[in-house]
Amino acid sequence: MAIEDLFRQDVKVINIGLDSFRESLEKTGTPVAQVDWRPPLPVPPQSWLRLEAHREAIASANQEAVNRVLAGKPVLTGLGRALDCVPGMRPDLFLHAGPPVSWQRMCGPMRGAVMGAMIYEGLAATPEEAEKLAAGGRVAFAPCHEHAAVGPMAGIISPRMPVFIVRNETFGNCSYSTMNEGLGKVLRYGAYSPEVIERLRWMEETLFPALARCLDRTGPIDLRHIIAQALHMGDEVHNRNRAATSLLFRQLAPGLARTADSPETAAKVLEFINGNDHFFLNLAMAAGKAVLDAARDIPASSLVVAMARNGTDFGVQLAGTGGRWFTGPAPVPDALFFPGFTKADANPDIGDSAITETAGLGGFAIAAAPAIVQFVGGSVADAVNYTTQMYEITLAENKLYQMPALDFRGTPTGIDVLRVIETSILPFIDTGVAHREPGVGQVGAGVLSAPPEPFQAACAGLAETLAEPSSSA
Amino acid sequence: MAIEDLFRQDVKVINIGLDSFRESLEKTGTPVAQVDWRPPLPVPPQSWLRLEAHREAIASANQEAVNRVLAGKPVLTGLGRALDCVPGMRPDLFLHAGPPVSWQRMCGPMRGAVMGAMIYEGLAATPEEAEKLAAGGRVAFAPCHEHAAVGPMAGIISPRMPVFIVRNETFGNCSYSTMNEGLGKVLRYGAYSPEVIERLRWMEETLFPALARCLDRTGPIDLRHIIAQALHMGDEVHNRNRAATSLLFRQLAPGLARTADSPETAAKVLEFINGNDHFFLNLAMAAGKAVLDAARDIPASSLVVAMARNGTDFGVQLAGTGGRWFTGPAPVPDALFFPGFTKADANPDIGDSAITETAGLGGFAIAAAPAIVQFVGGSVADAVNYTTQMYEITLAENKLYQMPALDFRGTPTGIDVLRVIETSILPFIDTGVAHREPGVGQVGAGVLSAPPEPFQAACAGLAETLAEPSSSA
Repeated sequence: MAIEDLFRQDVKVINIGLDSFRESLEKTGTPVAQVDWRPPLPVPPQSWLRLEAHREAIASANQEAVNRVLAGKPVLTGLGRALDCVPGMRPDLFLHAGPPVSWQRMCGPMRGAVMGAMIYEGLAATPEEAEKLAAGGRVAFAPCHEHAAVGPMAGIISPRMPVFIVRNETFGNCSYSTMNEGLGKVLRYGAYSPEVIERLRWMEETLFPALARCLDRTGPIDLRHIIAQALHMGDEVHNRNRAATSLLFRQLAPGLARTADSPETAAKVLEFINGNDHFFLNLAMAAGKAVLDAARDIPASSLVVAMARNGTDFGVQLAGTGGRWFTGPAPVPDALFFPGFTKADANPDIGDSAITETAGLGGFAIAAAPAIVQFVGGSVADAVNYTTQMYEITLAENKLYQMPALDFRGTPTGIDVLRVIETSILPFIDTGVAHREPGVGQVGAGVLSAPPEPFQAACAGLAETLAEPSSSA
Repeated sequence: MAIEDLFRQDVKVINIGLDSFRESLEKTGTPVAQVDWRPPLPVPPQSWLRLEAHREAIASANQEAVNRVLAGKPVLTGLGRALDCVPGMRPDLFLHAGPPVSWQRMCGPMRGAVMGAMIYEGLAATPEEAEKLAAGGRVAFAPCHEHAAVGPMAGIISPRMPVFIVRNETFGNCSYSTMNEGLGKVLRYGAYSPEVIERLRWMEETLFPALARCLDRTGPIDLRHIIAQALHMGDEVHNRNRAATSLLFRQLAPGLARTADSPETAAKVLEFINGNDHFFLNLAMAAGKAVLDAARDIPASSLVVAMARNGTDFGVQLAGTGGRWFTGPAPVPDALFFPGFTKADANPDIGDSAITETAGLGGFAIAAAPAIVQFVGGSVADAVNYTTQMYEITLAENKLYQMPALDFRGTPTGIDVLRVIETSILPFIDTGVAHREPGVGQVGAGVLSAPPEPFQAACAGLAETLAEPSSSA
């Protein structure tokens, strides 16, 4: 081709990286093929060299880890009191969301939830008394995640609280989560007013025995099946659980009618579940936890087995680094705020609910639930793009969890921290937003990308577990 | 531009009409912009001239008609026995799907359903006796549609059958439909074995009083609200009703637990509904009927108020042509057949369920339920295309009924028979498939386009109602 021909032709551009170049060209009417590329997230060069030297071992460990995740079969087997069934639970122990945090570093809504739980437990009569006792060390704190449990938002699990018991039938491990209280003024968003405590008591005295008796009669409920259906029905089972809650409700209702201590109890329990489209959320979380815990403790694996936030720190755990937490500051989500509230009222990101994204659901499956993106001003195409990006940082597609909008492609599953580093694509997470002060409750719902620091730290942490490459290598 | 420049440039083509030209060009790598165009369906020129002369009157009548459709508010108010509540019902009258048809012209599955209903009514002891009595004129037949009712598939409504009562709150008219029996060997697909009759009796003796008592206590249920939600949850409320059934179930369950004559009855009724994802179908149909009946009898309107099939004929009624039916032969659907069956076993299209498409749902809203298209080998893009085509032949978009895959665009609503003629685009319909012999039942499910003849006849029929244009016009 002669050089003058080149200038006679229309210009065709392949743009790599920065979107602003593409946008300028498109404004001039020039066709542009965009190649998504960003510089990798910085990690210490010696860490990266060590990881590079172990690429094969890491790949093989990751294959094992993600195979375990895909093989997991979470079923709801029953309910119990936390003190009776959660491993390592003690009468003076309160579990919370996210990585470890002291009372001193705890955010407002988590403090509020601790105060409410102390009143609920009968340890304090007033919020003031509860605050004083908590600050004085009356109870110990530990992450839910370190006790096979997960909790949304503040995620407080206190000893007498009833919990769902979810068993991973493939591997035999169990996970635990509280029952969802509903929206608005609820403990998990840091509210502790009398109505909050009263609802928790009703859940303990009426809802818990009714559901426990029903499940005793009907046997385990396959949560994987409900989640798979729900993804065909507009849920991503994090910020949208209407379909999953409906399907669970359908499975529970006949047994509840049969086993409740009275028709009125059955009706009240059914009304409570029907009144809360998020009732399934805590089960989606427990299902994710049960599945991901089976992939823990696989040396050299860079698979993320937990992403969790305590409202102060965002924490990550890997299959290859045992119980170690890698943390960074929790960001404030982009959200649609309830009337009267703004981003200035919002607490930084909080809750164990990112276990759904860690398991390939929630924000990773948002193409299944475009209504959530529309909620914060986006379109269906945005939802599809978010999910499509997540394939770049995950190890597998879950053929059981399919999304109609992607022609029934499986959800992107199993975050590889090395891919996060290499692509600079951070996990996309759906979330609720709590008021930053204790005692207020929910102020909105939204989406965010995980912060980079925990993934950078996790990468370096994984390198530390691997042998230094021999100089001859 | 010099003529030689034209030949130096790449060829760019706009192709109008036949797809095969586009395909040939695309094979050579030539860019083609396709303009969908087909010759109009033939109608007698004198009819078309008369319609053209009344374009303004038709447009204004259509505006009124479609406004009524959009304003309709169908609510489930209760249940009753057909003889007690369906207008014009008589002890010797059997209602059926589609336009009028005699026993002699009735297809196999409709005959089978009539025979089953005669056994159910106690008019005959055996299928043979029922057949003989029916052929001898023991009962009279009339279309459901002429009695404010609709029935899926054979659509038989016999006098003692319980029916849902749906009221259009905006206009005060009511519609009626039976309760859905479930899938497989069921009366509406032409089966009449003892299990079919036994189920009908249980529905009459247990399901009917339980639901009626529940609705008496809880008050009317807004069907529009359920349908709107269900479209966000993967249903088009014709061939897919899982979400709508779930949402209805959630609304009914507490009331059923409270009002059933025993916990066991409540449990059995809940199990029956939970066991049939199509339970909502008959309510979606009654909702469509209640809404469309309010748009009847508007002189000059070319709005389609009914599309219905009796398994022999496909019939259409218009807002501007009163009770007159315009018919043509019912086609055999493209379907996925159950194991052991083929298209040779399939009865031509049957049922009043195309009332859902007439109301802008079902095949018109299939972009909301791509799983149905996948079922017969299509993709999500096909589903979106089918719905998008339907905007070409409809008068409005229903802002209450939104489809996520089209960025929450409203469903194409209100078929204009003139647009069908002008564009040659025929209504796209989801359907079940009955075996052509009586007594067998369902053999598959699929999709089809309506046949052209009823729409051509309706067009000519509407012209007959209009004054001949004056020669000076």
